[in-house]
Amino acid sequence: MDDIGVKFLSELVGTAMLIILGGGVVAAVSLTKSKGFGAGFLMVTIGWGFAVFAGVTVSYKSGGQLNPAVSLAQAIIGNISVGEMLLFWLAQLIGAIIGAVIVWLAYKQHFDEEPDPAAKLGVFSTGPAIRNYAWNLVTEIIGTFVLVFVVLAFTNGKTPSELGAIPVAFLVIAIGVSLGGPTGYAINPARDLGPRIAHAFLPIAGKGTSDWSYAWVPVVGPLVGGAIAAILSGALLPMA
Amino acid sequence: MDDIGVKFLSELVGTAMLIILGGGVVAAVSLTKSKGFGAGFLMVTIGWGFAVFAGVTVSYKSGGQLNPAVSLAQAIIGNISVGEMLLFWLAQLIGAIIGAVIVWLAYKQHFDEEPDPAAKLGVFSTGPAIRNYAWNLVTEIIGTFVLVFVVLAFTNGKTPSELGAIPVAFLVIAIGVSLGGPTGYAINPARDLGPRIAHAFLPIAGKGTSDWSYAWVPVVGPLVGGAIAAILSGALLPMA
Amino acid sequence: MDDIGVKFLSELVGTAMLIILGGGVVAAVSLTKSKGFGAGFLMVTIGWGFAVFAGVTVSYKSGGQLNPAVSLAQAIIGNISVGEMLLFWLAQLIGAIIGAVIVWLAYKQHFDEEPDPAAKLGVFSTGPAIRNYAWNLVTEIIGTFVLVFVVLAFTNGKTPSELGAIPVAFLVIAIGVSLGGPTGYAINPARDLGPRIAHAFLPIAGKGTSDWSYAWVPVVGPLVGGAIAAILSGALLPMA
Amino acid sequence: MDDIGVKFLSELVGTAMLIILGGGVVAAVSLTKSKGFGAGFLMVTIGWGFAVFAGVTVSYKSGGQLNPAVSLAQAIIGNISVGEMLLFWLAQLIGAIIGAVIVWLAYKQHFDEEPDPAAKLGVFSTGPAIRNYAWNLVTEIIGTFVLVFVVLAFTNGKTPSELGAIPVAFLVIAIGVSLGGPTGYAINPARDLGPRIAHAFLPIAGKGTSDWSYAWVPVVGPLVGGAIAAILSGALLPMA
Repeated sequence: MDDIGVKFLSELVGTAMLIILGGGVVAAVSLTKSKGFGAGFLMVTIGWGFAVFAGVTVSYKSGGQLNPAVSLAQAIIGNISVGEMLLFWLAQLIGAIIGAVIVWLAYKQHFDEEPDPAAKLGVFSTGPAIRNYAWNLVTEIIGTFVLVFVVLAFTNGKTPSELGAIPVAFLVIAIGVSLGGPTGYAINPARDLGPRIAHAFLPIAGKGTSDWSYAWVPVVGPLVGGAIAAILSGALLPMA
Repeated sequence: MDDIGVKFLSELVGTAMLIILGGGVVAAVSLTKSKGFGAGFLMVTIGWGFAVFAGVTVSYKSGGQLNPAVSLAQAIIGNISVGEMLLFWLAQLIGAIIGAVIVWLAYKQHFDEEPDPAAKLGVFSTGPAIRNYAWNLVTEIIGTFVLVFVVLAFTNGKTPSELGAIPVAFLVIAIGVSLGGPTGYAINPARDLGPRIAHAFLPIAGKGTSDWSYAWVPVVGPLVGGAIAAILSGALLPMA
Repeated sequence: MDDIGVKFLSELVGTAMLIILGGGVVAAVSLTKSKGFGAGFLMVTIGWGFAVFAGVTVSYKSGGQLNPAVSLAQAIIGNISVGEMLLFWLAQLIGAIIGAVIVWLAYKQHFDEEPDPAAKLGVFSTGPAIRNYAWNLVTEIIGTFVLVFVVLAFTNGKTPSELGAIPVAFLVIAIGVSLGGPTGYAINPARDLGPRIAHAFLPIAGKGTSDWSYAWVPVVGPLVGGAIAAILSGALLPMA
Repeated sequence: MDDIGVKFLSELVGTAMLIILGGGVVAAVSLTKSKGFGAGFLMVTIGWGFAVFAGVTVSYKSGGQLNPAVSLAQAIIGNISVGEMLLFWLAQLIGAIIGAVIVWLAYKQHFDEEPDPAAKLGVFSTGPAIRNYAWNLVTEIIGTFVLVFVVLAFTNGKTPSELGAIPVAFLVIAIGVSLGGPTGYAINPARDLGPRIAHAFLPIAGKGTSDWSYAWVPVVGPLVGGAIAAILSGALLPMA
């Protein structure tokens, strides 16, 4: 396989792993009869953090980006080309869709017995605590800015896997517990859009709307936040 | 002692340590009058994760496999022979039985005063939230696939102790919080079967059935998941 | 930019990052309709710990001090001059104010809908569980002593970033869960005073008093605790 | 200061730090009006784990033993002399007393307002969930065996500080969540006896008995467990 093919596969597999574990923890706390039902927001944030750890670990060939906002920042600072960025975006989106399908299989019976359509959608995609597109966008921009800015600070402009899978996990836990309250911290367009597509096409028993009217917020907000972080990093993180 | 004897002992001691701490945390949250009673699913997953950390630490001589599904994957990718694998399986099973006996001793009085037989069995072996052998098997396959696949990714085809005891612990916490909801994540045939055997022969006050009809699921599922991970790792994790 | 300008900016950006994530986690657990509402004290302490991790990571150019009490200790043991210390103090205070404004933006709608003025102030600044200036001061002195003393022990008299961002995070979690009960562990004058200033000037809907009568305790206590740690470290931590 | 004086001071300071943070977390969750009140058993175990991290960090000069059972194991395997061991025991006991006094000062007002004498004693010393000296002893022996055995495994017979402060912290969290249910896991004679002495002599408002009838269990159990671990480590952990 040529180098770009390896990286494409690496981002796809890594993002699938991210969503298996990240979507899984939401299923664990929110679907009826799950042994983790009601275990709370802290467990959700730990689950997503360690999901990033696992995803970065299996995608070290491509730097463990797993996130179109991270890849956009890499392109802005010149580490990858726009063509590579677009390929990474595609791989991340496909991986996220696959990961969401696997979560549905792992929790198939709990989806079948869950009466609340909103709980089902919540396993796939984020939604706002108080719906207001402008302010929801602000929150997603701030959260993703923090993610990308700290990664760039640690690695002098390189990739998440160079920061190390465990520090990135702790960073994602930090963002989740701190900035996840208003919108559920998508902070990653693929993490939200891919599973939402899966939600739309999967034959989930008793599912409701995929809430497409909100879908642009967790896509645009993270891209804007990642871009701002990339642009400001040159000024605010003077490198040696 | 010859080399294979050292490794046999290493797997036995490591798996015993794993079960002492892993079974212990279930006892801590579920048995009556325990100071940890009701501390919740997050604590259980942290307990099992750090139990793996301790088990891997004391079994570095044999790579800290502690799990027949991991050893099967090692055999499939050619790191160990089938004969070694079978010896490791035996050591892991014996270790798990010994560990379960020690948990019973540590919590002897709490077992004596616990009225619910299901709570007692739960300290030893896993059981499904919604009983359906096919779907329970799917969940165990997915969970173990994630475990073995990430370990192989990190170590380029080597053992858990080469990944490092702390990253493996975080990975096991990730799987627990994310994929533990439906079946309690055995993801390890020895972890489930060994303590179930101990449950069957120990003179536990007021114990009920050992639920042998379910016992094959957490044996077969993890072996299948580990095998799939070993086979796919060559294609999905192209090594340098 | 000259060296002192780089360090000034580094402390400013790092302290802003600290407050974005630290103030954020208090907002997440305490403001109405937040997805983390009621997630509890453990999550708050984990949030502040990992906030320090992120802050230290982005301010490695200046040693990740982020805390006037840490800078005072550095000056006492002779690592920085009094002039540098005062510049660091200013950078930390400005950074903390900026961070608090960003938290308010991220949680804007939740501040708007929150009926309790005390919950709003709590996102910005600490307050005592039982108000008694003398004993509150004692608690803040002890907490900050532990912080500065352990940092100095680990680094033989150097800075938090030399200890490493993750160990410092664990230390801050330790202090939070252990000594945070009586006063909410400011243990950092900038962390408390900067956001309190922001609380005073921001147009927060339905805000109450900024509780200026207590404001001196989380400034004086940490400075005294840090100074004691610096002075005792020579006697109690004999270096090689 | 001569070498043995440095080590004596190191163990004293380290054990004091251990008790400040460890006793502190019990106060945080159990004393009235504390901001951490009711935060639960998981937070207690995390607090004690990171307390060990901080204690080991400040006592690296003496190997961060902080525990007479660890020092006994060191003497049995020949790393230190019996004379050194006895000096370490004395330093650990004095340090633990000092640490307990500091916790009382940090939570002075909460002790004053707390109505339950048992909650006050619990900040200082452990007590059994179900009182039965023989079985309580068994639990303490098993818990301390795990502690000392894993430390010896990791370090090939050396000290906690050579394992590293963070892995030791994770190990102590593991033991707490898993084996802490029946007796509150003293697993350290100094950790229990020192604060109990402080409880006896401090002028704590409305304090009850110091429960001296139980005091021998968390002294004898850990020493027996540590000795067994030291003796078995040679057979079960064959070193290179």
